[in-house]
Amino acid sequence: MFPEYDVIVVGAGHAGCEAAAAAANLGSKVLLVTMNMQTIAQMSCNPAMGGIAKGQIVREIDAMGGYSGIVTDLSMIQFRMLNLSKGPAMWSPRAQNDRMLFAATWREMLEKTPNVDFYQDMVRSLIIKDGRACGVVTGLGHEIPSKSVVITSGTFLNGIIHIGEKQFGGGRVAEKAATGITEQLVEFGFESDRLKTGTPPRIDGRSLDYSKMEEQKGDEEMVGFSYTDTKKPTEQRSCWITYTSQKVHDILKTGFDRSPMYAGRIEGVGPRYCPSIEDKINRFAERERHQLFVEPEGWNTVEIYVNGFSTSLPEEVQYAALRQVPGFENVRIFRPGYAIEYDYFPPTQLNHSLETKLISNLFFAGQINGTTGYEEAACQGLMAGINAHQKAKELEPVILKRSDAYIGVLIDDLISKGTEEPYRMFTSRAEFRTILRQDNADLRLTELSYRLGLASQDRMDKVISKREGVEKVKDILKEISLDPTEADGFLAENNSAPLPQKQKAVQLLLRPNISLQAMIAGLPKIQQALTGFTDEVIEQADIQIKYNVYIEKEKELVKRMNQLEDLLIPENFDYNKITSLSNEALQKFKKIKPRTLGQASRISGVNPSDVQILMVYMGR
Amino acid sequence: MFPEYDVIVVGAGHAGCEAAAAAANLGSKVLLVTMNMQTIAQMSCNPAMGGIAKGQIVREIDAMGGYSGIVTDLSMIQFRMLNLSKGPAMWSPRAQNDRMLFAATWREMLEKTPNVDFYQDMVRSLIIKDGRACGVVTGLGHEIPSKSVVITSGTFLNGIIHIGEKQFGGGRVAEKAATGITEQLVEFGFESDRLKTGTPPRIDGRSLDYSKMEEQKGDEEMVGFSYTDTKKPTEQRSCWITYTSQKVHDILKTGFDRSPMYAGRIEGVGPRYCPSIEDKINRFAERERHQLFVEPEGWNTVEIYVNGFSTSLPEEVQYAALRQVPGFENVRIFRPGYAIEYDYFPPTQLNHSLETKLISNLFFAGQINGTTGYEEAACQGLMAGINAHQKAKELEPVILKRSDAYIGVLIDDLISKGTEEPYRMFTSRAEFRTILRQDNADLRLTELSYRLGLASQDRMDKVISKREGVEKVKDILKEISLDPTEADGFLAENNSAPLPQKQKAVQLLLRPNISLQAMIAGLPKIQQALTGFTDEVIEQADIQIKYNVYIEKEKELVKRMNQLEDLLIPENFDYNKITSLSNEALQKFKKIKPRTLGQASRISGVNPSDVQILMVYMGR
Repeated sequence: MFPEYDVIVVGAGHAGCEAAAAAANLGSKVLLVTMNMQTIAQMSCNPAMGGIAKGQIVREIDAMGGYSGIVTDLSMIQFRMLNLSKGPAMWSPRAQNDRMLFAATWREMLEKTPNVDFYQDMVRSLIIKDGRACGVVTGLGHEIPSKSVVITSGTFLNGIIHIGEKQFGGGRVAEKAATGITEQLVEFGFESDRLKTGTPPRIDGRSLDYSKMEEQKGDEEMVGFSYTDTKKPTEQRSCWITYTSQKVHDILKTGFDRSPMYAGRIEGVGPRYCPSIEDKINRFAERERHQLFVEPEGWNTVEIYVNGFSTSLPEEVQYAALRQVPGFENVRIFRPGYAIEYDYFPPTQLNHSLETKLISNLFFAGQINGTTGYEEAACQGLMAGINAHQKAKELEPVILKRSDAYIGVLIDDLISKGTEEPYRMFTSRAEFRTILRQDNADLRLTELSYRLGLASQDRMDKVISKREGVEKVKDILKEISLDPTEADGFLAENNSAPLPQKQKAVQLLLRPNISLQAMIAGLPKIQQALTGFTDEVIEQADIQIKYNVYIEKEKELVKRMNQLEDLLIPENFDYNKITSLSNEALQKFKKIKPRTLGQASRISGVNPSDVQILMVYMGR
Repeated sequence: MFPEYDVIVVGAGHAGCEAAAAAANLGSKVLLVTMNMQTIAQMSCNPAMGGIAKGQIVREIDAMGGYSGIVTDLSMIQFRMLNLSKGPAMWSPRAQNDRMLFAATWREMLEKTPNVDFYQDMVRSLIIKDGRACGVVTGLGHEIPSKSVVITSGTFLNGIIHIGEKQFGGGRVAEKAATGITEQLVEFGFESDRLKTGTPPRIDGRSLDYSKMEEQKGDEEMVGFSYTDTKKPTEQRSCWITYTSQKVHDILKTGFDRSPMYAGRIEGVGPRYCPSIEDKINRFAERERHQLFVEPEGWNTVEIYVNGFSTSLPEEVQYAALRQVPGFENVRIFRPGYAIEYDYFPPTQLNHSLETKLISNLFFAGQINGTTGYEEAACQGLMAGINAHQKAKELEPVILKRSDAYIGVLIDDLISKGTEEPYRMFTSRAEFRTILRQDNADLRLTELSYRLGLASQDRMDKVISKREGVEKVKDILKEISLDPTEADGFLAENNSAPLPQKQKAVQLLLRPNISLQAMIAGLPKIQQALTGFTDEVIEQADIQIKYNVYIEKEKELVKRMNQLEDLLIPENFDYNKITSLSNEALQKFKKIKPRTLGQASRISGVNPSDVQILMVYMGR
């Protein structure tokens, strides 16, 4: 009934969808197996993509030829560029999405991707021969053969949902859990553990009084995520901001004795940086209020997501507390918030390609690796899909370095440090964040992806033309000189000191208050010289000139780091031979088997002296 | 956490959605409880509305102010008026729908209906006090009070899904079953039994070869269902026709030993008029082939519904057989067909208002009453919603007679005759089908609905203006005379005999080949006289004049039937006192408790002599 596939992807959330698209676009014959074809690409939690660090990841996925950016652009109802008051390294795109349109768009794009087949069924086990994954067995009993398998199980593996003292099985509320895979893999020697996440109640927007909240509008320009020319909406919907209060907290506390968290019924660890409201009250007892974002779920629905109010307290407590929130006096709940526990596999059991160390041709992506967040899941899916294809075709794995992308940081963190709580991306996790910006993901990644055969010719052409444009603009600015009579009026208007003498235009850009956009607007000579360059090229040249010192400094650091990165440790290196290693380093090295000296140095508990010893032993 | 509602509707399929809308629009405070807010108004089986007799029902629902017609018009991808070659009593509108858009549109319309609240949870039991339903208890343990309850459980009550030798619980594939209500009601003395239905496999349209099938296009004009001015699409998608063959049947037969039907694992009775392909092969062994309709599931999806191939045979048999169908040589299956068994309550346990006899203020609608089909479910939902509102507000029940509407026929059939297999509407079930046409549902029903407060002023105004227009047109045609010189050219063109003498225009219309539309096109005098009347008015006048003799004859029959219908039988009538009744009639009367002599006469097994005796005994 089924042919042999190159790649089978298990699960059709953010990770699974990206994995299927990537492998198929590289030329693999892909089967996407999902428990329900009606719930492909569901946003299980908030209807938003991007945000700080996460927005950068979506841009990177897009630059690589993934679909998340395009889908987000086509289904967004609001767009904001966060952190615009800070340096461009911190600029982070974020979109609110129409939940149903997001899922429908993903499905449509996958259906239009040649080489992606679909099958609706649960996967209950893997076919494993000689330590190699070569297919899956479904709930209905079908054995479907393949060269590689990618598992993206989200919260479905042995999922248990908690609301107050009630608990029941489920992968999401109203959906069945999946079983079988964990048990099989544990028998094969995998370590597995439990994590926990949660979601806030969904609310009837008709029951809210928006006059008591602050409106949060979208940006005037909907920049979006994709480097392709996706069509952006012409309207936007607002979000709203309101706050909890001491009274709200007091009511919530009355439910703590029935909380599955505090009563110990939940074993899994929750996401530290996306805590439940009860967690926030507990951990920040001094805070008198917490912000809540009231987010519409789409263009035409009254359903509202209460961002910041994730909770697994009893519903009556959720309800009573919400009613004390300004604007929520008459709130009606569509469904309560809840917590969900699920299986994950500590990611130190993976190689950088996201292939498992114990079973070859088996790849994991998303929450199964201990991450949280759509963007974190999607980018792992992309890389797992690429590498599942590479493996199926007996090609080299594709690995992004920490200096290439946030995606590289994320995967290296997971593989080298593991995680014991849901891992979320932050800009602070990246040591080279002046380089890893949202505006240059295309310049950083598209060429690699194009060479692989993933990014299209059109994407590559755009990158080449952007790069050439930027160089031209920089050259022009280095050539043109401005004398005080030309520039001083403009400088005065922009609160900048007058020119002491004739200067190259490029010099002016180093002044804090002067942007290239402003120079074009205020200096006819510049305007004339730069006519015909796109806004994107102008912005990129501006950033590259303005932050050149920092960028060059980071590039130097990257170079030094890559020297360590290039020192490969032989695959079956016998650490026992090195007697002078610390005990902890010895254990970690043996467990994690770092691929390079660089990776070895980033393992938590490993000291510089251990790396030094290792380096010496390897003949340096 | 919950206020007291007037009406709680359990389940949000076609029946539940209509029930919620109707009760709310009449002024009841309504709570719609669904197990999953993402699956409101799912088309569980084929993506189509209407068809023979069913199309009439949708028009009736629309005329009453229900939503099914509007939703269908807004989400249709193809429209056809079936049976146009027959008399207008047989004309039946049918639409293919975009499955996702249909559900999204329903949800949007419900969200925009004031007084409809939503809650996502399973209902596990009813709150019953003193024989009266006064709320529900949910899976999470909430007690939600209400004045009336409508249950529309579809296939979810103790649903069991069968595919070949495999079986598992579920309300639809990939969705959980509901439990608790049957057990509670049986304890209260209700009879419950099992029915079965099925659905065909879903197919990847990209794997089909359409050049081997016949194309079936939509009508040039997309007439639609609603009497309101809903916006119709400007494009349509085609369906395709192909056929099974002896070879297909032979392959299917190889699975019969593992069929849940033939192996006796399914206890429930299936729908006779929507049989599985294995049923068709069995029952019509002499037929060498069966027609299959290849129906797209929406505007933008490749998913295909194979109408006519419902099956619960093992998937590998489904697959092998499908591959022998022309155009399906390389078919890929998204998910296999399956059968589902579920609980229903034989509908003789209901009053004509759809309230149960055993528990007051409790209403049933849809598959729980033993029907099959979206349209049958929707119209019961509408009537149950109306009557749940009436009961909550202590108003008289609203009952449509058999001469008012197909809806009246359907409910009277269910209540009086019961059903032991899934009941489907046919034109042949209606004794007054010349009156019950799709073109006059507004003229028949809107006034009643308007007086109730359900149909809008706008709908009523349109009906009044249509009625007046039709009368005016008829008057004009009775006045205008045509002489042979004026008419004979036109008559010759239309293959009709020349005029023997001057004649009233209305006389010409009685000729079989002459339509009013044709007269307007071919006779300048008529065209001039009828300028300004809408197509709808012209068509209606045409039908009323042409079929006047039949219509009047039926009206006479209706009058006579209504005499029996008006003879009410006292609620606690003691049939035991009538010694001369046949045994069967006595039992049936005691069980069904007919409301009128008319209803008594329609109970199966009751003879005219029994009715005669009953009438005599009642003092006639």
